[in-house]
Amino acid sequence: MARYGAAIFDVFGTVVDWRSGVAAEVTKLYHAKGKAVDAGAFADEWRGEYQPAMQRVRSGNRGYVALDTLHRENLEMVLKRRGELSLFTEDELGALNHAWEKLPPWPDAPAGLADLKTIMPVATCSNGSIALMTRLARFGGLSWDCILGAEIARGYKPDAKVYHLSAAALGLAPGEVIMIATHNNDLAAAKRAGLATGYFPRPDELGPGVKTDLAPAQEWDVIADDMIDMVRKLR
Amino acid sequence: MARYGAAIFDVFGTVVDWRSGVAAEVTKLYHAKGKAVDAGAFADEWRGEYQPAMQRVRSGNRGYVALDTLHRENLEMVLKRRGELSLFTEDELGALNHAWEKLPPWPDAPAGLADLKTIMPVATCSNGSIALMTRLARFGGLSWDCILGAEIARGYKPDAKVYHLSAAALGLAPGEVIMIATHNNDLAAAKRAGLATGYFPRPDELGPGVKTDLAPAQEWDVIADDMIDMVRKLR
Repeated sequence: MARYGAAIFDVFGTVVDWRSGVAAEVTKLYHAKGKAVDAGAFADEWRGEYQPAMQRVRSGNRGYVALDTLHRENLEMVLKRRGELSLFTEDELGALNHAWEKLPPWPDAPAGLADLKTIMPVATCSNGSIALMTRLARFGGLSWDCILGAEIARGYKPDAKVYHLSAAALGLAPGEVIMIATHNNDLAAAKRAGLATGYFPRPDELGPGVKTDLAPAQEWDVIADDMIDMVRKLR
Repeated sequence: MARYGAAIFDVFGTVVDWRSGVAAEVTKLYHAKGKAVDAGAFADEWRGEYQPAMQRVRSGNRGYVALDTLHRENLEMVLKRRGELSLFTEDELGALNHAWEKLPPWPDAPAGLADLKTIMPVATCSNGSIALMTRLARFGGLSWDCILGAEIARGYKPDAKVYHLSAAALGLAPGEVIMIATHNNDLAAAKRAGLATGYFPRPDELGPGVKTDLAPAQEWDVIADDMIDMVRKLR
């Protein structure tokens, strides 16, 4: 008998390697134009607009818009700032925005999720949209039982409603669900919302030399070395 | 290249055999009480309250409540009518209501969906809740990419918004999505909402001798003999 009724996961960083995936697509598109680019720096700059864009929704200054739209707006903002927006056609911008649907899973993620799925329901609790999460799962072979998170709550983590409504959509109380993430702030919000919490580090998420979230900041309910270790501890 | 961007499915009747599944659980519970029951008739009577209950939501007389709640209310209504509500404890009523999460798939459904999933995204477009559809998929080995339908639209088929919002959640226009069902009225509503339509019959859905929806009522976009034939035609 599993200790929890379901496990819900952060995805960007915890399950997939967004920085490498975005950088690969950026490199491809710039090279096709015969242009040089520091693709890692580009990915960081694009991702840098992620929290401010969601904050406008969280604060109520803007109604819920899917992350796909925020990513696209942020992409144009970054390119404008670099004076490179006019380099790309509308179709190319669309293709670049789809980089977020082609992020490689961390090597232990597909097998780990498939294994965990035999024990309990596994779902996303990401700020990504249903469309984005669905395509990303197909790209990386991630065997979710269902897609929860931002879109069903029409809000963005770390708003408590995203965790609450994800548990409710499974017919479970918050305390019956474990939120699993490599980011301490995500887990802190999940814990405040009444969920159980599980942590493992992803030391390569932010690129060479960046030392954020490499250790648990609190006594999370389950602390593991990686996805495989987490599944072993949840068994 | 697939003709459609995604396939979304009716579930009760089209993918799973709700009548046999509910009857099996009813039989189990009545037998545990040493009571006789015509379980098929019980399943029909319970399902008979399905449309009226959803109609109260569709008409706006009641806000959206998940099908799990409607099923539970309808169960109590049926038992009261039969003078048998007091036979069962609260826990037993809850267990009986979970019958809807333990419906056997039609024999061709698990392999057919797994096969179709290699061609295009496959999702539910059912009136069942996310929790119900998630558990049913785990019970029957149904490999959905995501759970769409009533709960994300906060409404019930055949309301157009359920089809529209299911397509939109995949980032697709209605015409890029094919709705697949064994019920002509479901397909008629999907067609009016702008979706493509696919039909195959499930002659045993309603029990012996019931001859509803055994043939396509219109020239649906794809007409097949069964799930396997449908997947072959969508390839």
